[in-house]
Parts: sequence; structure tokens; C-alpha cells
Amino acid sequence: MSTAFDLPPAARPGQPADTIDTPSLVLDLDAFERNVDRMQRAANRARVKLRPHAKAHKCPDISLAQIKRGAVGICCQKISEAIPFARAGVRDIHISNELAGPAKAAMLAQLALRAHVSVCVDDMAQIDILAKAAEAVGTRFDVFIEVNVGQGRCGVTDPAAMLPLVDRITRLHPLSLCGLQAYHGGIQHLRGWQERRAGAARAADRTGAFVARLEAAGARNMVITGGGSGSVEFDLQSGVYTEIQPGSYVFMDADYGANEYLTDERPASTNCEHSLFIASAVMSVAAGDRVVVDAGLKSMAVDSGLPWIWANGARSETLEYVAANDEHGIIAPRLASRVRDLPALGSRVMLVPGHCDPTLNLYDEIIGVRDGVVECVWPVAARGLSR
Amino acid sequence: MSTAFDLPPAARPGQPADTIDTPSLVLDLDAFERNVDRMQRAANRARVKLRPHAKAHKCPDISLAQIKRGAVGICCQKISEAIPFARAGVRDIHISNELAGPAKAAMLAQLALRAHVSVCVDDMAQIDILAKAAEAVGTRFDVFIEVNVGQGRCGVTDPAAMLPLVDRITRLHPLSLCGLQAYHGGIQHLRGWQERRAGAARAADRTGAFVARLEAAGARNMVITGGGSGSVEFDLQSGVYTEIQPGSYVFMDADYGANEYLTDERPASTNCEHSLFIASAVMSVAAGDRVVVDAGLKSMAVDSGLPWIWANGARSETLEYVAANDEHGIIAPRLASRVRDLPALGSRVMLVPGHCDPTLNLYDEIIGVRDGVVECVWPVAARGLSR
Repeated sequence: MSTAFDLPPAARPGQPADTIDTPSLVLDLDAFERNVDRMQRAANRARVKLRPHAKAHKCPDISLAQIKRGAVGICCQKISEAIPFARAGVRDIHISNELAGPAKAAMLAQLALRAHVSVCVDDMAQIDILAKAAEAVGTRFDVFIEVNVGQGRCGVTDPAAMLPLVDRITRLHPLSLCGLQAYHGGIQHLRGWQERRAGAARAADRTGAFVARLEAAGARNMVITGGGSGSVEFDLQSGVYTEIQPGSYVFMDADYGANEYLTDERPASTNCEHSLFIASAVMSVAAGDRVVVDAGLKSMAVDSGLPWIWANGARSETLEYVAANDEHGIIAPRLASRVRDLPALGSRVMLVPGHCDPTLNLYDEIIGVRDGVVECVWPVAARGLSR
Repeated sequence: MSTAFDLPPAARPGQPADTIDTPSLVLDLDAFERNVDRMQRAANRARVKLRPHAKAHKCPDISLAQIKRGAVGICCQKISEAIPFARAGVRDIHISNELAGPAKAAMLAQLALRAHVSVCVDDMAQIDILAKAAEAVGTRFDVFIEVNVGQGRCGVTDPAAMLPLVDRITRLHPLSLCGLQAYHGGIQHLRGWQERRAGAARAADRTGAFVARLEAAGARNMVITGGGSGSVEFDLQSGVYTEIQPGSYVFMDADYGANEYLTDERPASTNCEHSLFIASAVMSVAAGDRVVVDAGLKSMAVDSGLPWIWANGARSETLEYVAANDEHGIIAPRLASRVRDLPALGSRVMLVPGHCDPTLNLYDEIIGVRDGVVECVWPVAARGLSR
């Protein structure tokens, strides 16, 4: 009895989209491309560079599509995450994060032999570790000082505390100070537009105070990098950032979808569309007042809320995904009396994931569809690379 | 400029455990083996078969260790998940779930050519689909009717509604009725021991009612399979189940750790130990009143709570993991005044994940350690296989 048995592919190019095996991650290529174009156009008009974050998708095909349209490079959050992108030909990678120690710095030095890399610091010890690792293999690093503009996570909080780091970087030969990184994750999901605008303004003000201090110390032509998909419309107009790092805008997950946006038809609008879906199927209808689909916690991240049910180009008004178990998702009618709205056994249910970044990290491939047909299958090559 | 650059392994056998790259999933092999032995011994004493659930770990090495100690086979929750186990030599696989349609049934038929498989149904349509798929490749399936004993998810709720399914299975040649599956996930995490015992008793009573109905209809020697790590001590004594399906007991995540267990030194005790940890490292201390580790939402599932910090063989009394961002974990002192308790930049922090099943689904390997040394690196071969 042979034990060899390959899992058939979930989809092949040319196949009808409604026959993709479930659960699978499906990308509406038209909506995706409109999102990519929209953000690039907005950045161009503001004369701000676009360096999209790859942590949102971990998929080199997506980064290459962004770069082709004008992005200057990408951000990665981990060194291991950057490797598949460097392999795929991305030549400019910013590690928008601090490193935990010498072993990580050695990995970064290997990466710096293959691509232009930059990295963040917020502590003197990190600077020394980086310099040593670069020297050991005869390379160099561009360095950004991360500044805390309200997130309270990584980054120097006091502009005065930044100056000794500037001084140290400047004196170490294998390092060059490139600028500042200022990211405030907490404001990305403030629901109200006014509230988000005010939060982004406060973060930009704080960033401005760091920049002023840096320039007073003699630094010139610094790159000020930051911003995210929820604040980008304000970041672009702030006059503070020279480069923006949005990532999720290519997909627009349910959490970003729950933000309030102003209707905006200008060519420079950054309002994006839902392009990413989980194709699931109904596997049990026995309960009667609810149905069970085959996509649960192993097919989506729920840290930012449960997925939306997507039907006819909009969030379903009749059905709700009410609970995620490991391999099961429970779907109930919004009105308990309307059990007739429940989908039949075996039927397909499309979901908008609550939070795209950790959802992508569960899948090995993204199935691109256009006009109801599978067009491509893109590897999520950096999935699981969190070191 | 070459773009080839392989990610160095996180660990190699023989390496000191405290040099494993972070974040990584680390298994204390001594604790793991004691857990495996403990559950097998308890099942043997109760004369109940142990069919551990592989959805908890997705790692064939773990299933093979359980089978070597007496497990009769394994459970998988998805057909794709079962494939790496069949490949690794597991010969008896129960799919403890319903299938969404003919494509899934065709995959199951392929699997049935390589291993003994059984599967659950709770609808007439599923039965017909299974029979057709088995016939198409000249194989057969053992079938379990899933019954709803309080979970309200999959499974027939009314014993009377079970009988037409029994009848149908019996009349279709490629199918054999094997018994009933009765699993109540909701009682596994009732915190109080009395509460959990009462919940398990109610589920066992309901299961018993289905069994009685089945026997009245003439069925004999039925396998009654169910139970989980939180209810197993009661399931084994219930007299209803002939087979139990616990999975998480090999690891004991923080969510199971939060359950109340009675002190129990009997040889048949099912009380297990924490054996699974996430090794993380401090990457930023700039905030002053907290530190940031490199393990966040992409390194752990948080649906059942944040991880515990583990130090000196117990849950830390001074530090707490207070927030998980995508790639960052925030650690704060339990008493805000005790910032001196915070770990230094670059130091290692061990975490007990909140929920093991979806956490394992994020990792490609489990690093087994014993006596402070890496002993093995086990592939999580079914990671991401949710179809």
C-alpha cells in the first residue's frame, strides 16, 4: 500500500472562480490593482515616496506589482521575512523594526550582501551590534532611529535622548544615519474620520519635533518614514513624512473597512476597496437555526474581529459570521426568525477577513481571480517567516 | 549580485536550548512524554481506546509517538490535514468532521486507498456524496453519525432524526456505519472542576440517549467516539464512550492551564503539564515602563487569551504579556512600580501560548529540547492544511 498522495491544488489558472477548493484566500485582481494605482497616484501627487509594507501580504508578486507602478522599495518587519522578497528581485528593503541581538544582525548582514537594506534602532546597544555585524562581512547598513510618536511601543520617546544615538551612528563607519521612522499603529483604526485626522495630526506634530531637533543637530536630507493605511490621507498632507509605509490598503480588511472615510472622488483619494476574500463552504446545516462553514481560526485571524460575509459586492445584510472555532465558522441570520436566509449545504460563502496581516500568514498561496476566472496563484513566500 | 540566501535554521540538534533563534516553538520533551504516557495509562485503565486528535499539533512525529505507546490511530479535522500523517505511516485516521461537497469526498477516497479512514456525517446528502466518491475509485468508507450533545455546531440534534441516516448508510454498499461521534467543545474550558464534571455528565447522558436509540434499532458493537482534553477524566469514567479524542493534553496551553483540576496522584490521573513554549527575545526597552518581545500575533493565536510568561518552571508572578501586535508583544510588570523586574534588551522570554491548536498552525517546526539541549526538530507537516 503506497503512502504517496499529493494534495490536489486548490485552484489552477483558467478554472472558474466558483470551483476553487475551500477554504482558500481569493484576491479580486481588478480591485487590488485599483488599490495599488490609487495609493501610488496619491503619493505621487503629494510628492511623497511610497514604500509599501510587505508584512501585510508576505507575497513577492504583490511587492513587484507595487514597485512596477512606482513604489521605491518595500518594508519588512522581520529579517527572515525579507529573504523571499530579496530572492524575487526586490532590491530595496527597509526593516521597519529593531533587532533582538547579534544573531539577527548577522542575518541582516547576509541580506545586505544581496539587497540594499536599512533597519531601525532605538538603543545604543543595537547600534554597536549592527556595526560589528556589518564589519564582520564587509558590508554596511543604513540606519533609521525609530521615534515614539504616541504608540508607546518601540522608539525613542524624548527628542533629547535621540541625539546620543545620532552621534553614535555617525561615528561608526559601517553605519549611515538615513532618517527617522515614526509609526503610530494605534491611530490607524480610530473609527471616526475626524478622530483619525486629529490623531494623525498629533503624531505628525511629534514627528516634526524630532525632525526639528535632528536638523538643529546638523542632519540634512533625512528620510522621514512612517504612516499606515488608516492615516495615509493625513500623512501625505502633513508635510512631515518624505515616505509612507501603508500595507493593508491593497486588501482593505474588515477592520479597515469599519473605519469612517469621507466620500472622495478626487484623483488623489486614498480610499480603497475590499479585494481580499476567504472562499468557504457550508459543511453542516444540521443545527437548523445556523450553518457551519469550513473556515475557522486556522483560516483567519480574529484578533480584530470576526469576518464579514460578502455577497453581491457588499456586506451581507441578512447573514452574520457569529463564531470562529478552530476549523468551523458559525453563520447565523441577523434576524433569528429568518432561517430561510441561511445558505444550503455545500454552497459557497465569501468572507472579508477581520485583519489581513495575520490572516495572510496562515496561507501558502493567494488565488487571483478576474471576471470570474482564476488568473494566477501567487505564493505567500514569506508566510511563517517571523524571525 | 546573487539573490540566493537561505534562512539559517532556528536550531540544530545538539545546540544549547537557550541559543534557539526567536520566535520559535519549543517542546519540553520530558514533559511531553509524561503527558503522552499519562493519557495512555488512564485510557488503558478505563478500557477505553485512545485516538488522539492531530489537529492540536499537525505533527506526524507526535502521532507516531502516541501510536507507539498504544493509541489506536488518530483524528484529523480536515482531509488535507490527514495526508502528511498517512504519508508518515499512520494507518488509521478518523476525519472527525463533515465534508463540504463532492470534491472533498473525492480527496477522501484517494486517502482511503492509502489508509483506513472514517468520516462523520449529519445529513443525508453527505451520505450519498460519500457513497458515490467511494464507488468511483473502488474503495469504501467507515461512517460515523455526528450527534449534537450540547455544542450546537455540527451533528444531529434529535435521536429520531438519526435513524433515517442509519438506514441510508446501511443500504449503501461502499459505506459502513461504525458508530457515533459526540463532542462538546464548549465544556472543555469550563473553569471549575465541578462545573466541567456536570457539563461532561450532561453530554454523556445525551450521548447515551443516542446510543440507546441506535441499539434499539438493532445496531451492535458501535464505536462511540468523543471527548476532549478538558473533559477526558469524566469521559473515561462515563461508561458511554468506547474511544476518546483528546489532542491538546500533550501540550497543555494556557487556556487549559486556567482550568481548575483536582490534585490527583493516582496512576490513572489525566492531569497534564505545560510542555509547549514560544521562545521570544526582547527587542526594545526604549519605552522604559514596558519591554517589547519579537513574538506577536504571527507567532501565537490569541483567540483564547494572551500567553503566560514562564519562568523557573511556573507562571511569572512579576511580569505579564499585556498586548499582542502583529510582530510585537508587550511585556509589563504586574505592579507598575516594579519596572526593575523587566528583562533586559536581547534577553530571552519563554511564553505558554493561550491556545495551542491555531498556534501550531503558524509554525513549520517544533524544536524538541531535553536537559537544556536541542534533541530534535519535528516538521509541523500539516500546518496550513485546512482544506
